Amino acid sequence: MWSLPPSDSVLHLLALVALTAQGMTAALAAGRRSMDWLGVCFLGSITALGGGTLRDLLLGHYPLVWVANPIYLVLPGVAALLTILFARLVHRLKLAFIVLDAIGLVVFTMTGCDIAWQMDVSLPIVIVSGMVTGCAGGVLRDVLCNEVPLLFRSELYATVSVVTGLFYATAFGLNINAELWTILTFVLGISLRLLAVRYKWEMPKFVFSGDEER
Amino acid sequence: MWSLPPSDSVLHLLALVALTAQGMTAALAAGRRSMDWLGVCFLGSITALGGGTLRDLLLGHYPLVWVANPIYLVLPGVAALLTILFARLVHRLKLAFIVLDAIGLVVFTMTGCDIAWQMDVSLPIVIVSGMVTGCAGGVLRDVLCNEVPLLFRSELYATVSVVTGLFYATAFGLNINAELWTILTFVLGISLRLLAVRYKWEMPKFVFSGDEER
Amino acid sequence: MWSLPPSDSVLHLLALVALTAQGMTAALAAGRRSMDWLGVCFLGSITALGGGTLRDLLLGHYPLVWVANPIYLVLPGVAALLTILFARLVHRLKLAFIVLDAIGLVVFTMTGCDIAWQMDVSLPIVIVSGMVTGCAGGVLRDVLCNEVPLLFRSELYATVSVVTGLFYATAFGLNINAELWTILTFVLGISLRLLAVRYKWEMPKFVFSGDEER
Repeated sequence: MWSLPPSDSVLHLLALVALTAQGMTAALAAGRRSMDWLGVCFLGSITALGGGTLRDLLLGHYPLVWVANPIYLVLPGVAALLTILFARLVHRLKLAFIVLDAIGLVVFTMTGCDIAWQMDVSLPIVIVSGMVTGCAGGVLRDVLCNEVPLLFRSELYATVSVVTGLFYATAFGLNINAELWTILTFVLGISLRLLAVRYKWEMPKFVFSGDEER
Repeated sequence: MWSLPPSDSVLHLLALVALTAQGMTAALAAGRRSMDWLGVCFLGSITALGGGTLRDLLLGHYPLVWVANPIYLVLPGVAALLTILFARLVHRLKLAFIVLDAIGLVVFTMTGCDIAWQMDVSLPIVIVSGMVTGCAGGVLRDVLCNEVPLLFRSELYATVSVVTGLFYATAFGLNINAELWTILTFVLGISLRLLAVRYKWEMPKFVFSGDEER
Repeated sequence: MWSLPPSDSVLHLLALVALTAQGMTAALAAGRRSMDWLGVCFLGSITALGGGTLRDLLLGHYPLVWVANPIYLVLPGVAALLTILFARLVHRLKLAFIVLDAIGLVVFTMTGCDIAWQMDVSLPIVIVSGMVTGCAGGVLRDVLCNEVPLLFRSELYATVSVVTGLFYATAFGLNINAELWTILTFVLGISLRLLAVRYKWEMPKFVFSGDEER
């Protein structure tokens, strides 16, 4: 680990924290549907790792991260289980978890862009890879909870991921100080997400009421 | 492109048109659930490309078509977005979209059979590959819209795909003029689908009312 | 086949029986949602093969079992179709199907562990591979039927899979008579599952009623 450049180590650490946080908020969603303990544990792991897993499947990037390092699998699962004990506390720390979730969104997006870039795909796919990594876990959670995915209906969430990815990926072509750029992207992404939450920025909605036609 | 045999060029063009059309009808489904603009864009792309993507994952056929050619990804997404402006028009052109959707069903099925055949799998898998390519996008759209997939409940849709695939694949073993066969399959598939829509042909349903047993 | 060790042949036979049984119970679920015949057939195949398919995708284990041997695909699909004729009978044979389903759970779990072990992954991933193989088909069925997966809410089902996998995999490191161990694992898994059904053993539930926070 110590041989990695500092910003990578920090990103890695932030990713572990974010995995834990996503496992914990997914546990609350599980509790709202009265899932059993194992269900809580599954939903935590699937939510935290679903994005990276889908990205790896789509890019053919084997072995999957959590297959190579099972700690990534165990961490959010255990965090979800512990949430059963501290549900009220986790719920009350809402603000802290919004920040942690924003960190996850931004860090996962950057990781997704990095991995796609190393696989030599074109720029639009680098952005998509970042977005899938950052957002797909929450979509999976909503599908498993039998909801229309929140991602599609409210909040500037996927948008933050796309903007972060676009900004981050511009540096790939240029010859920019990677570390500085990583920090700038991180700050931009987090700020954008937190401002969106604070001021309830939303994408405009498309409301259509014609009958089903199929 | 000009060096390809004519029927391939035409199929390719029809596939692009069908991707666009599927993105647009998916946008209407998104609008019925009041998704935001980015959700509309996602649902369009996922619906149009879901079938081919699932096929490629199941067959281990990397890189995925849209990873290699991002235009396939951008096209239905942009078409879905534009649908927000022209929703009423798209809705009124119902008949045109039924035809375009039928073209998509048949062309995607044929593409799926072709790709599986090139990977040297057995005949039943060639048919399944065609069917997954033709139908899975709509199933994904319905799951993301929190509906029991329409495919499982009404319309001669998957059946058309299976019949088209069976007819198309019989030529693989024989030594038939490929171009003629492609045209014949196309006409058969489209006719079958449009007749099914016109005369409301449906598969018989299996209605069972015993209690849940799990 | 005759050159395989006896316990493998028996496991293989039991797997075929279990695939058939899972296709048949999935057909009843399809009938409860009034799906058409092709939908019944799909849901049967997807439920029976979904677990193994997801495992193979996650591990990058190509070609998928049913792509290499389409009989695995055809068997549960045909069994599901036949169930339309014998729905009342299948429903009345509830007990037999509970036993067959338990056999499927245990045998699929063991197969999943075997395959992961051959791919040289770590022990936690061996267990996860067994669990995914044993349980994911039912989750897919519930998502396609637009339900919160039963697996997450009731019954000692995934737990049986985890315990079976843990017990089975301990033998991989040691130098134990493989056949004896296979039989022991099988008996343990089946007993645990049937006792859980008989005495309604359940995992404790996590019920949380705070508001949605995203």
